[in-house]
Amino acid sequence: MTIKLSNRSDVENFRALSILSEVAERRASGENIISLSPGQPCFGAPEAVLAKAREFTQKDPIQGYTAAIGTLPLRQRIARYYKDTYNQDIAVERIAVTTASSGGFILSLLGAFDAGDTVALTLPTYPAYKNMLRALDINIVEIETSKETNYQPTSQLLEASGKKFDGIIITNPSNPTGAMIGEDTLRNLCAWCDTNGVRMISDEAYHGITYETPAQTALKFSDNVIVLNTFSKYFALTGWRLGWMITPSDMAKNVKSLAENLFVSPPTISQFVAQEAFEHTDILDSYVQQYRANRDYLREHLPALGFSDLSSAQGAFYFYVDVHNLTNNAEEFCRRMLDEAHVAMTPGLDFDPGRGDHTIRISYAGSLDDMKEACSRLQSWLG
Amino acid sequence: MTIKLSNRSDVENFRALSILSEVAERRASGENIISLSPGQPCFGAPEAVLAKAREFTQKDPIQGYTAAIGTLPLRQRIARYYKDTYNQDIAVERIAVTTASSGGFILSLLGAFDAGDTVALTLPTYPAYKNMLRALDINIVEIETSKETNYQPTSQLLEASGKKFDGIIITNPSNPTGAMIGEDTLRNLCAWCDTNGVRMISDEAYHGITYETPAQTALKFSDNVIVLNTFSKYFALTGWRLGWMITPSDMAKNVKSLAENLFVSPPTISQFVAQEAFEHTDILDSYVQQYRANRDYLREHLPALGFSDLSSAQGAFYFYVDVHNLTNNAEEFCRRMLDEAHVAMTPGLDFDPGRGDHTIRISYAGSLDDMKEACSRLQSWLG
Repeated sequence: MTIKLSNRSDVENFRALSILSEVAERRASGENIISLSPGQPCFGAPEAVLAKAREFTQKDPIQGYTAAIGTLPLRQRIARYYKDTYNQDIAVERIAVTTASSGGFILSLLGAFDAGDTVALTLPTYPAYKNMLRALDINIVEIETSKETNYQPTSQLLEASGKKFDGIIITNPSNPTGAMIGEDTLRNLCAWCDTNGVRMISDEAYHGITYETPAQTALKFSDNVIVLNTFSKYFALTGWRLGWMITPSDMAKNVKSLAENLFVSPPTISQFVAQEAFEHTDILDSYVQQYRANRDYLREHLPALGFSDLSSAQGAFYFYVDVHNLTNNAEEFCRRMLDEAHVAMTPGLDFDPGRGDHTIRISYAGSLDDMKEACSRLQSWLG
Repeated sequence: MTIKLSNRSDVENFRALSILSEVAERRASGENIISLSPGQPCFGAPEAVLAKAREFTQKDPIQGYTAAIGTLPLRQRIARYYKDTYNQDIAVERIAVTTASSGGFILSLLGAFDAGDTVALTLPTYPAYKNMLRALDINIVEIETSKETNYQPTSQLLEASGKKFDGIIITNPSNPTGAMIGEDTLRNLCAWCDTNGVRMISDEAYHGITYETPAQTALKFSDNVIVLNTFSKYFALTGWRLGWMITPSDMAKNVKSLAENLFVSPPTISQFVAQEAFEHTDILDSYVQQYRANRDYLREHLPALGFSDLSSAQGAFYFYVDVHNLTNNAEEFCRRMLDEAHVAMTPGLDFDPGRGDHTIRISYAGSLDDMKEACSRLQSWLG
């Protein structure tokens, strides 16, 4: 007898990851590819952080479970980071260390929403959101943003949409545009959500990687917001799979119980490594300066190649480009670029089903040499 | 405006983990506690495995994302393990490396069941199952087992229950009883599930830790079963948070997409460490011999202390004990044992809401010295 698969697992694959895999396979077979696709720092953790990992395997070979919401010292260190960075006092009870921000998303979505609830996404958006929502039986309403609002939501835009929703996910700085939400706009968004009983999840994964003004945390403007962050981006601990969430006080108990049952414990060695990472922000900040150099180089050279309609890229390490002057099939265009110019970029469909046929995400998380070589190859290819 | 919490996040906390935390806190404040509570090996990974972790931080400091279902070499190594251990040929496409078996459970439950579907649990059972099912909107039917069937389900028991369900979770060897399902019983269970269109999830987390006959994998008897396993028990990599699942062929695509969106990647260093662990089964087997010595010691000494109605403990590292001769409030009994004898055990309510008031789980994953000291303290305490 054939046994059914669930409907909710019939989600789309994550194209950016498929490209990552394809690039890895092609490189393994000897092809020289420059990838402007992955959202992954080209820098590893600072050597002193890796040394801590080595030391920890000698000092504590057992590496047992920690508390499901993480070790107390790491949660205390995160609290101090909020004080130092944003001048916010966050009770340690509200902080949960998670298995990357992926784990934080599962806990947030289950903690805030029941099956049948509705969450708003603003397009363009990070593609895993919609697939996570779908898998967890949460309905989605999409609200298009445009260049006029820096590809970010505003309270006016939410109000004008006329749509009803129980929650919203915002990403600041944004993946895929790098656009940031200004302080006043963020304050108004938080107030609008509070007034309308809408639970905001603020994905702050790219905080620390900003080029003009530092990012503000939504925690500053509402006690109801759930904040998610990760050690994968600014802290350059991508494969160590660790992140954290700040829950509203009244949600902390449920999140802890969910974490115990769904995850048991975040990775132990990663927690000790992450704690050490806070002590090496000088090196982490130097990585940001290298991303900035990449950004500036691309902003100078891409327009002449036809990639002229660039997003604001105030943070994170992405440009989002409107390429309607080059193609109306960005997926096929990226495919040819990979085959013929050996340069990988991510077509827009993942981020915006409606307009993604003529948009592309360009990641500059690689080295400056890679940026230069990519431009040189594109120059020859686009001729 | 107050914003609602979800109903589905109102799950019970995981008592065994609360005891783990309490023991850690009491030890930190100087109290000398012998814990027969945690399901966590007292042995760490073999030194050669830890050396691999150190080497890996030097060879590959970037530690980026791997494929969402794990590295190909590790998946191939797992396939070889199935050939060597069970003489089963498993296509590598069916193997997904997961973030511990916790991650595998989320993928399995979402992959197999929609909200409103029903899954059977046989009591006593591992407590996180029911809380995971609840959080993912899956209904539960409970089927009591008893000493007559070695606290394990049989096809007759499922048939006689008259209950309807879309899936069932079996655990072999069992947590909390250590009881195993014999080969014929397992074959019949698989056939019954296939005939009745019931998706079986076989939790094989304790395979490798067996004292009489090796455990059989349910894969041998059905192509529809989902098998979950972990590196946390036999492989002694508890805090490294890695496991794997074998999916039915027709489920592999959905599980991969779910993994990409919900997890992105399992921890990278853990995957290299786990692969090395397969090469040190001589040491891992010596751990099992130490658990066996613990088991034999307890089986000899516990009955005289009043813990006489012991489960069969053919595998894993647990005894489940009926203590109705000592108490009708196992929770309060364990609390007094901790306060007065400084010995920690896990009361049964977590595993069996109906009968757990007079049952206790005793873990013998610790050292033989701990087993001896625990018995000595209990002797004084129970007089």
